[in-house]
Formats: sequence, C-alpha cells, structure tokens
Amino acid sequence: MRAVDLIRKKRDSGEHSQEEIEYLISAYTRDEIPDYQMAAWLMAAWIRGLSRDELAALTEAMLHSGEVVDHSYLAAKKVDKHSTGGVGDKTSLILAPIVAAGGLAVPMISGRGLGHTGGTLDKLEAIPGFNTSLTLAEFKRVLRKCGMALIGQTAEIAPADKKIYALRDATSTVENIGLICASIMSKKLAEGIDALVLDVKTGSGAFMRKEEDSAALAEVMADTAKRMGKKCVALITDMGQPLGRFAGHSNEVIESIQILKGQGAADLRDLSFELSAWMFFLGERTKTVDEGRALAAEMVTSGKALEKFRDCIRTQGGNPRVIDDSSLLPAARSHVEVKSPSSGYVCDINCLNLGVALARLGGGREKKDQNVDHAVGLEFHKRIGDPIKTGETLVTIAYNADGQLQTAQKMIAASYIIGDKRPAARPLIRRIIGC
Amino acid sequence: MRAVDLIRKKRDSGEHSQEEIEYLISAYTRDEIPDYQMAAWLMAAWIRGLSRDELAALTEAMLHSGEVVDHSYLAAKKVDKHSTGGVGDKTSLILAPIVAAGGLAVPMISGRGLGHTGGTLDKLEAIPGFNTSLTLAEFKRVLRKCGMALIGQTAEIAPADKKIYALRDATSTVENIGLICASIMSKKLAEGIDALVLDVKTGSGAFMRKEEDSAALAEVMADTAKRMGKKCVALITDMGQPLGRFAGHSNEVIESIQILKGQGAADLRDLSFELSAWMFFLGERTKTVDEGRALAAEMVTSGKALEKFRDCIRTQGGNPRVIDDSSLLPAARSHVEVKSPSSGYVCDINCLNLGVALARLGGGREKKDQNVDHAVGLEFHKRIGDPIKTGETLVTIAYNADGQLQTAQKMIAASYIIGDKRPAARPLIRRIIGC
Repeated sequence: MRAVDLIRKKRDSGEHSQEEIEYLISAYTRDEIPDYQMAAWLMAAWIRGLSRDELAALTEAMLHSGEVVDHSYLAAKKVDKHSTGGVGDKTSLILAPIVAAGGLAVPMISGRGLGHTGGTLDKLEAIPGFNTSLTLAEFKRVLRKCGMALIGQTAEIAPADKKIYALRDATSTVENIGLICASIMSKKLAEGIDALVLDVKTGSGAFMRKEEDSAALAEVMADTAKRMGKKCVALITDMGQPLGRFAGHSNEVIESIQILKGQGAADLRDLSFELSAWMFFLGERTKTVDEGRALAAEMVTSGKALEKFRDCIRTQGGNPRVIDDSSLLPAARSHVEVKSPSSGYVCDINCLNLGVALARLGGGREKKDQNVDHAVGLEFHKRIGDPIKTGETLVTIAYNADGQLQTAQKMIAASYIIGDKRPAARPLIRRIIGC
Repeated sequence: MRAVDLIRKKRDSGEHSQEEIEYLISAYTRDEIPDYQMAAWLMAAWIRGLSRDELAALTEAMLHSGEVVDHSYLAAKKVDKHSTGGVGDKTSLILAPIVAAGGLAVPMISGRGLGHTGGTLDKLEAIPGFNTSLTLAEFKRVLRKCGMALIGQTAEIAPADKKIYALRDATSTVENIGLICASIMSKKLAEGIDALVLDVKTGSGAFMRKEEDSAALAEVMADTAKRMGKKCVALITDMGQPLGRFAGHSNEVIESIQILKGQGAADLRDLSFELSAWMFFLGERTKTVDEGRALAAEMVTSGKALEKFRDCIRTQGGNPRVIDDSSLLPAARSHVEVKSPSSGYVCDINCLNLGVALARLGGGREKKDQNVDHAVGLEFHKRIGDPIKTGETLVTIAYNADGQLQTAQKMIAASYIIGDKRPAARPLIRRIIGC
C-alpha cells in the first residue's frame, strides 16, 4: 500500500477500506508516512468527507494507535461524558461525583481550555494540590478507590490523535465533523468505557453555532460509538448563554460544589442531573432515564456525591477542605462591575465574546501552552429573558491584571443585547440523539 | 500573512489576491512555509480550482522565484515550443533548427522522458558528446552563436516549480490543469521568450486523452501566457498513434535528421512545419502562418536547417558527423519483429502501451533517475487506416537486453486493433486555440 495512492483515492471521492485506513494511521504514527502526505490526505478528507464505515475505521485505527485502558478489575460499568465545550460548562465536576456515588465507574480523561472555552483540567487545577497528570497505573488506582478519576491525556492514549491534531491545527483541517468525531471518540473509547453520554453544545458560545450542525456531529458520534459496540446518546444543549452563574476556574469549582450541596443555578443543576441520568441509564444502573434523574437528585440530597468529590480531591492530592472553605481557592485581587446601558430585557447574548473576554483577562488560554490565572472569573447576573434596568449589573469581573480590562469590559458590555420585548424562553435541552 | 489562513481560504473556495499567492510561493521557496502546509494548500487548490487571475499570479510568482533569462543582447525575437509529450514526438529537434535558420532565436529548455513519453534531453544525449547541462552563461553563448540552444532545466530557473513539483508528485496533486499550467508556463517564460507555441497532445498516447481536456488545458495556458504579455497559440494535435515512424532515442535523432534532409514521414514533417510556421508568425518573422509554412519548407530544401542543427550539435560538444553517418549513434544488438495476427485494417492503436513497452525494454524511464538505453527503439510500419495482412510486420523492436522482451512483444501486439472496416481518416491537427 502506498500513501500517494490513498491520497489520490480520497481526492477522487473514493471510499477507503478498513485496511487502507488502518495502514494510513499506523504508518503515520510510526513516522513512516511524512507529514506532507498526511496533510494532503486530511485536506482531501476534509473536502470530500468520510463515510460512516471510513469514520468507524478511522476511529478504531486511532484508538488502537495506543493503549486501550483495561478496567476489567472493576465490577461496575464504566461510563463517561464528553462535552464539545463552551462558557461556564463545569458539569464534569458535578456529574462525575454524582454518578460515581451512584455506583458506576467514571474514568474521565479531559482536556484543557483554548480560546473562549474552558477545560476541566484547568478547573481542577484551581484546587490546591490537585494532580491531573497521573500515570495510567495511578489512574486505575484512583478509579478503583473512588469510582471516579479525573486526569489529562497521557502519551499512551491515542498517540495518532495527538500527532494528527497538531497537523490539522497547522493545515486548516480542524472543523470537519468526521475528523472531529474520530479525534474525540478515539480518545474517549481508549478510556475503556462501556457507555458514553455526549453533550453537544449549540448556540453563540458553542463550537458549532447552528443546531443542525451540532445535531449532525452528534448523530455521527453516536453512530460511530455504536459501531464500536459502545452505548451512546447525545444531548444537544443550549450554549447561547453561559451555563450557570460563573465562568472562570476557582469560581466554577465553587459553583460545582454549590450544586453538589443542593444549591446553585437551576440550569446548571438541571443539565448536570440530566447528563447523570443518562449515564445511569446507559450504564444499566437504572432501568429508565427518569429513575436515573431521581438517583442523581438522591446522590446530592444525601450528601453522597459531595463526599465522593471530597474523596476524589484527596486521593488525587488536592486539598479536600476547599469543599467547606472556598477561600482556600485562588481569589482575585480586584472586582469591577459591567452595568447595563439601558432598560428592558436581555434578548440575546454573544456567549463567544464573553469567553474571549475572560481569556483576555488571563482567565483562559488564547494560545496553547499559555498559563491560566485560576482566580480570574466572571459572574453573570442576568440570563436571557431577564428584565434589566439601566445601571443594573450585568457581569462582575474578578481580575488581577488590568492590562486588558477596558477591552474586556467593552466586549462584555457589547455581548448583551437589551431590547424592549421579552424573548421567548429557550429550552436548555434541544434534542436527544441516538437513544 | 499566515499560511494556515491561506489554506483555509482555498479550502473554502475563496479566491486569493496576487499578494497572497506571491507570499505563499516566495515563503515556500525560502523554506519558511513547511511542506505539510503547502501540501494541504495544493490539495485544496487541486479540488477547489484556481481562477484565471490566481493562475496568472501563481505562474508569475513561480517564474520570479528564480532567474528570468535576459536575452536583450539578441536582436532577434525569441520563440519556443512546448509539447505536453507523447510517443515519437521529436519535433523539437526539427523545428528548432528550422526556426533558428529562419532568423529567430530559439532558447529551448527541455525535460527528460518519464513513463510512456520521451524527453528531448534524452534524445539529444544519444548524440555522442552532446552536452545539455549548460550554465545560463553557456546557454546564452550557444544561443548567440547558433540562434538556438537546447538545454535542461538549471537550478536558477523557477526553483519554486522544482520544489512544488516534487511535493505534488508525492501528494497526488499532479493532474490539475491550473497547477500543470503554472508549472509549464513558469519554466517556459523564464527562458526569456517573446512568444510560445504549445503543442497539446490528445488521444491514447497523450497525457490527456480526451480532446475537451486537452483543449481546456490549452486554453488556460494560452490565456495565462497572454496575461503575462507573451504571444501564444496552442495546437491540439493527435497522439492517438506514434508521431512519425520511430520511437526511441538514436532512431528519433536519425528520423529528425531525415526530415531536415527533406525525407521522412509525412505526419512528422507536416506537424514540424506547422509548429515552425506558427513560431515564425508569432515571432513576427512572417506576416502570415502560410508564409511561415513556406519559410519552414524553404529552410529544409535549402539545407539551411540541417546546417543549423549541425552547428548546434558542434557548439554543444556533440559529434556533428552524426548528421552524415547515423552509425555513429548508439545501435541495438538485436532486432525482432512483431507481426499482425490477422488481416484487415489498423483501426486503432493503444499508443500509451507502445510507449510503456519501449520503456520496459530500457528505451524509456519507468522511474525518475533511471538511465535510458539510447539504442533501444521501435519502428512502426503501419499507421491507423493502413491495410495489413496476417504475418505482416507491425513493429520492429531494436533491443539490447531481452529480460522484458516477451512482455513488450505482447503489449505491442495487443496495442494494434485490426478490423475489417477502414477507419475514417484522423486529422493530425485538431484545433488551434488562442490565435
């Protein structure tokens, strides 16, 4: 088999056999196919598309480019959730303890934030001492002890994805449903899970703004997971405004703990419970999703989920006292409020720009390998549909450095569209795909 | 400007500005853009296409990536011909002396054969001592002395093309009209010519088999040349059967000399005169193409073209006595005839396979950097439309090594379609484009 022939085939809209895809990925991972040939193939695949069979083969080849974690030492079913990311999306910190407390195992390998979106690893690292860089052996040890483990990608997991993703980033071949799907699914399935719940965001703060695009990605991912013998469901959920009341790192940890204490914002609680419910259902812990929802609520009211989180923080080297004392988390030196210039209703929010403004302030990552300031954050006082008066606070900014403060303030103020007419209510969960 | 943004633009079917194309090519030539980014751009350009403006900008950028030869020391107009290649296509060896004898300058930079097609440089090197590897200074010296010079590409000429062509070869981005056009035209225009005659082949032995495809390439090349201020015409000519009676190296030199002596095959003479006529016309040596045709014939009957060729051979280090004594050229040790298995008419010829069979015997190059055996060749006894009897000779093979002889014999025999009905005559010159 020759790479040049495979490139030609995809260029001419041909469909690859499983053997061809397997050769392409394994030879590239072994450095036997040069970057320039893979780049040409990626562009051809980006433009011509990949069939469902090709996609399953690609996912499988990338999955098997490294280690697939074996959790056969666990009796419990292994379930995980993946979100396509957004602003204030901290459900992982909430549902992992809920689902682990409910008796399933949650082996969660997460990523870092980039651009306007936050990352679970960064949020966890706001907790003093919390170590996300575990080896696979340590990952298993934590999972066995706590029923949950929260780590970053290791070199053993899907090395082909790591190599291909870097190349896609440099060759404008990122935004393609098939390639995104293979990248996400190969990493997630390498965790050794039985079932996966996907939270595919839609709206102004989502990677895919249009609901149809989000649904198309969700459909392809759910299909691919099932072809690989995994249970999978995808929820299309609203990212037209931040999820919950806070974005940032310390403050998202605090908000997650609030939810686990039975407090906090309704939208964040609802979505966390809904995703947990589906995890319970797909993990065969409950017979229905409704039962799953009830079990999620029970894990919170009983305090079991909170204790599970405390246990996990301790086991991964973090200071578990943050659960009771939020002042142990990094705090910003200064606060400033962004006020509404007019009265009426919040009609729409440019959620993307809220995330970008946060990153500008240091509370996010504009480029890879940049450090984030865990103390920086935004508190959102108004949601779409809320009435507002001139001078009332829209957002409170918690910041340390003020170099980008004015820019951020302007971006945030411009992100809120205030109008006379109250907009129609927006459902948080738009569609459920693949069930 | 960033390469990643230019890749995205072409991926999304955008049109580049002249500045963008110029940046892409010059930065790539300076190794500031890596191969993998250029590979992704080439694939996007291959699939999405290039506009005429983009193509002119690309050709210009590639042309100016190296030296554009300055022939201002010559009073005569500089004209050249480029052929897309085929089997037995040796018109360069004939028309260069004719046109130079007629008073124009022919600064011809040629290539080598690959696959089923022969190359002018290889043919010239059948002449003992003939040196095609001249520096640009030597090239000018020969041109000034003889009015013609026949050399290979130098490192100074269009280095971007050399680098891009190697990458295209490895990434299946060769067969694209725009990229082919830019590659050919940048090299040809770097010769410092005033006018160019294109011989775009069509049929079973051509790079593009369908006449519409050949015409499309011709049209784009003629348009690009004109946008760059050069006179240009393209003749679409038949390559459904070999041109002339011989293919190979020694024997094509011999056949070219025959034509210059007023002998030889009618089709080869007609096409050589026709191309010469257009060169005379575009080079403003004659007022009409008809006058150009008459001048070409006169240069042969007067013996001036033959003397011009002799002069050029001598000046470029070759043995000029080959003009009078063909035994000075490399000769094959053995000959064998391929005979017709049936009677009737030659209805069609698979010209591609005749070229491949010749290459198999060593008389062509199956891979780059392979040596060719100048002595090996084919003599074609029958043309399409000729009557033939069972056992009559179709082709005489001149060979040295017999390892591939049986394969070649079979391929050659299978290349001739013998039928009962005499096929319609096929015009040699199909269309004239760009005049």
